[in-house]
Amino acid sequence: MQEIKLNNLEEFLPQSLPQESRAKAKTLFYKSLALKMHRFYGGKTAVMPKAGIFDINWFNVWYTPGVSAVSTAVRDDNDLSFALSNRGNTVAVISDGTRVLGDGNCTPAGGLGVMEGKAMLMKYLGGVDAHALCINSRGKDGQPSADKIIDFVKMCAPSYGAINLEDISQPNCYKVLDTLRRECDIPVWHDDAQGTACVCAAGLINALELAGKKIENAKIILYGAGAANTATAKFLIKLGADGGRITMFDNIGALRRGRDDIKNNPDFYRQWELCQITNRDNIITEEQAFADADVVIAASKPGPDTVKPQWIGMMAPKAIVFACANPVPEIYPDSAKRAGAFIVATGRGDFPNQVNNSLCFPGILKGVLLCRAKAITDDMAVVAAKAIAKRARDIGITPDNILPLMTDGEVYAAQAAAVAQAAQREGLARVNISYEEAYQKAKKDIAASRSLASLLEEKGFIKTPPASLIEETLEEVLKNL
Amino acid sequence: MQEIKLNNLEEFLPQSLPQESRAKAKTLFYKSLALKMHRFYGGKTAVMPKAGIFDINWFNVWYTPGVSAVSTAVRDDNDLSFALSNRGNTVAVISDGTRVLGDGNCTPAGGLGVMEGKAMLMKYLGGVDAHALCINSRGKDGQPSADKIIDFVKMCAPSYGAINLEDISQPNCYKVLDTLRRECDIPVWHDDAQGTACVCAAGLINALELAGKKIENAKIILYGAGAANTATAKFLIKLGADGGRITMFDNIGALRRGRDDIKNNPDFYRQWELCQITNRDNIITEEQAFADADVVIAASKPGPDTVKPQWIGMMAPKAIVFACANPVPEIYPDSAKRAGAFIVATGRGDFPNQVNNSLCFPGILKGVLLCRAKAITDDMAVVAAKAIAKRARDIGITPDNILPLMTDGEVYAAQAAAVAQAAQREGLARVNISYEEAYQKAKKDIAASRSLASLLEEKGFIKTPPASLIEETLEEVLKNL
Repeated sequence: MQEIKLNNLEEFLPQSLPQESRAKAKTLFYKSLALKMHRFYGGKTAVMPKAGIFDINWFNVWYTPGVSAVSTAVRDDNDLSFALSNRGNTVAVISDGTRVLGDGNCTPAGGLGVMEGKAMLMKYLGGVDAHALCINSRGKDGQPSADKIIDFVKMCAPSYGAINLEDISQPNCYKVLDTLRRECDIPVWHDDAQGTACVCAAGLINALELAGKKIENAKIILYGAGAANTATAKFLIKLGADGGRITMFDNIGALRRGRDDIKNNPDFYRQWELCQITNRDNIITEEQAFADADVVIAASKPGPDTVKPQWIGMMAPKAIVFACANPVPEIYPDSAKRAGAFIVATGRGDFPNQVNNSLCFPGILKGVLLCRAKAITDDMAVVAAKAIAKRARDIGITPDNILPLMTDGEVYAAQAAAVAQAAQREGLARVNISYEEAYQKAKKDIAASRSLASLLEEKGFIKTPPASLIEETLEEVLKNL
Repeated sequence: MQEIKLNNLEEFLPQSLPQESRAKAKTLFYKSLALKMHRFYGGKTAVMPKAGIFDINWFNVWYTPGVSAVSTAVRDDNDLSFALSNRGNTVAVISDGTRVLGDGNCTPAGGLGVMEGKAMLMKYLGGVDAHALCINSRGKDGQPSADKIIDFVKMCAPSYGAINLEDISQPNCYKVLDTLRRECDIPVWHDDAQGTACVCAAGLINALELAGKKIENAKIILYGAGAANTATAKFLIKLGADGGRITMFDNIGALRRGRDDIKNNPDFYRQWELCQITNRDNIITEEQAFADADVVIAASKPGPDTVKPQWIGMMAPKAIVFACANPVPEIYPDSAKRAGAFIVATGRGDFPNQVNNSLCFPGILKGVLLCRAKAITDDMAVVAAKAIAKRARDIGITPDNILPLMTDGEVYAAQAAAVAQAAQREGLARVNISYEEAYQKAKKDIAASRSLASLLEEKGFIKTPPASLIEETLEEVLKNL
């Protein structure tokens, strides 16, 4: 019998298992394996020197007395910190752990697994160094405080080239992002919002192309009005969508001018803006919205029956369905297809068309670091979305392949270069760098990350876990299914 | 002609240069080289994976969906974060950049060179991962705020196994350290204070041994009453010194009960404590203090004439002189020796007996991480001092070799194991670990750090800088001397 590896897992699941149970089994398997593997390695990333320590005297250069010249040079011109310290290639992944992936409030330390995972992705996919900072944002009243997060990020900003915010609960996430984008002189990125929106936009560009439709004429539903979909709405409008033909739903109903509950709650100023510019026809019910709709992008709560098959059945021909909730999409792909969908995307890697932030944040952050940008604007994120879509078309798109895969190194380098150019056009770059130079530097750093990982595995700095651990984990999961 | 390397630099300095000019030339050389080299490498440390990414499916383990099990496990038992995340081996090196080495206020980003250097030392010497966090501590009034630093550290503490505070200006450094030591449940270390004091104490143990004197009977001067010497006073008393026979000096004069300026300034509560327990004989002048003194430990302002040769001449036979100011000691070793000193130590690596925090912090922090300690007490630091002193005696001590060198890997492993045992005795360890187990684990991690650096150099991940850079730098310095 062959050895179980993670890339042949499907073969070891009983043929008789229905699709839902297969998905469930895989999720349980990965969760159980994750606990064991995180313990086996004691975390996922470490620090390494990137400068030579050819003998102990080199600490006279890297530390006292030599380093004094670096301190005073940066004191006199803070922008030199990007060239003379790690800052030029380092991002902080900051979360207060109040809304960790699908698990809600996990306490600050409970966010470390996810944020360190993000840091690992940042390095492996984008050649970017990243630190996980899981912080306690609770004030004296015991509640998470947007102001505390804002103050924390501003305090540590001098150490980083960019900030990646993550898994901060509503409504704090809006105020934190909007304030920091306005007040920091380094890029502040909220991956749950802008990252998801960027990849959704990229996927939609290609899905519409395959459906032979134009975004200007599309009737679009955004199901869920949280951080992700509110950003997606803005991006789609920037891509040419007609705001009036977009209908958004939150857990109460369709966003529209009559939603006084939103209007009167200052925490939801972002949603209130959207109430005013979307839904020209004052649509109220799902049935009205789905009738003849071209696109639905769901980023709401885990399914499988959050988006109903009969709604899909009401959509226009060549309907496009993005069901992004994790771990269970709002509607399963086979169910959506049976109901008439032409293209279905989800957040999962085990179905076709994975809409996953990991496809953009390593490239976008690499891009802003390469030109030492002062900000990431929505326009820059839309440029990244177009670069992703273009890369997929260069490979060749089909209804089951609207996006590149995470294994494609090119897509990150292409985004980095495009984003660096966009930052320069917008006057937000501290240094000028050509498309070609940015592209080559990103490509080189990404290739170095991957070969570093291989070298560390090959030389035993990263141990190979016992195969029995994987086998036992699968056995246990199948037994308890 | 042979190639200039950093370990044969002396040979390339003109023989005719007097000692002071040689020291100055070397300092200028290292500063100039540091600027070029920091630019060449773009900083000093990077992130690497420490867990296997054997194929892209492993991100299902390291990230979603698998990592969810880590989030919820840590949520339910925060102590698991030490086992399941990087936290168990990661330290934050935090500074507000208001007093960076000898350069004073360098702005937050101006501290990055030093703090990243510290992180590099932490990895290379102690097998500890460390992040530099240079923060803006200024409040609305534009002044550095102790409360802001305290709040920042408390907020990010859930991400780290220990905190290393560094280069925070007076008087904030006292309040920040004392408050955080009381209120954090991870160790908080102030290297400028406890680190210097630990290595001074270690050196003094062996110097007194060579002088054939007992600490209980020694008449001791602490010249300078800042963070370092106030900690040294406490440590020496813990080692058996008679507080009444210690005389401390600040820039106004001897600390004593009559110092109302200190008594009435709440910022200097630490010094006021010492006014009350030192200087039994109410000594006022330097001459009174140095008469028949056995030991002077200077940690005040750069010399060379801060401590005067005639004062050394008044000391008891076999006088011990520690002149720790950087880059220029309060008195040069040859000058102190001519005045009658038996043993002289300084902060510099180019004279014998370097008193340098780097000899302790990587080992002490490794020790607290290995047992997941909740604090570092002064008693634990004194245990580390004894371990350093013992290691030097095991190698063999002479008046010019009272301390081990930084190249000695053993000294860090021995401290780590001793500190981990001390934490367990004090009931401050989250996990039990035997001396032998801690020693072996520390030794293994330190050896791995060093071989990692070699491997990265060998495989080209760390480039060799052009030899011409070093030559040109030296030429320039000699030309402009």
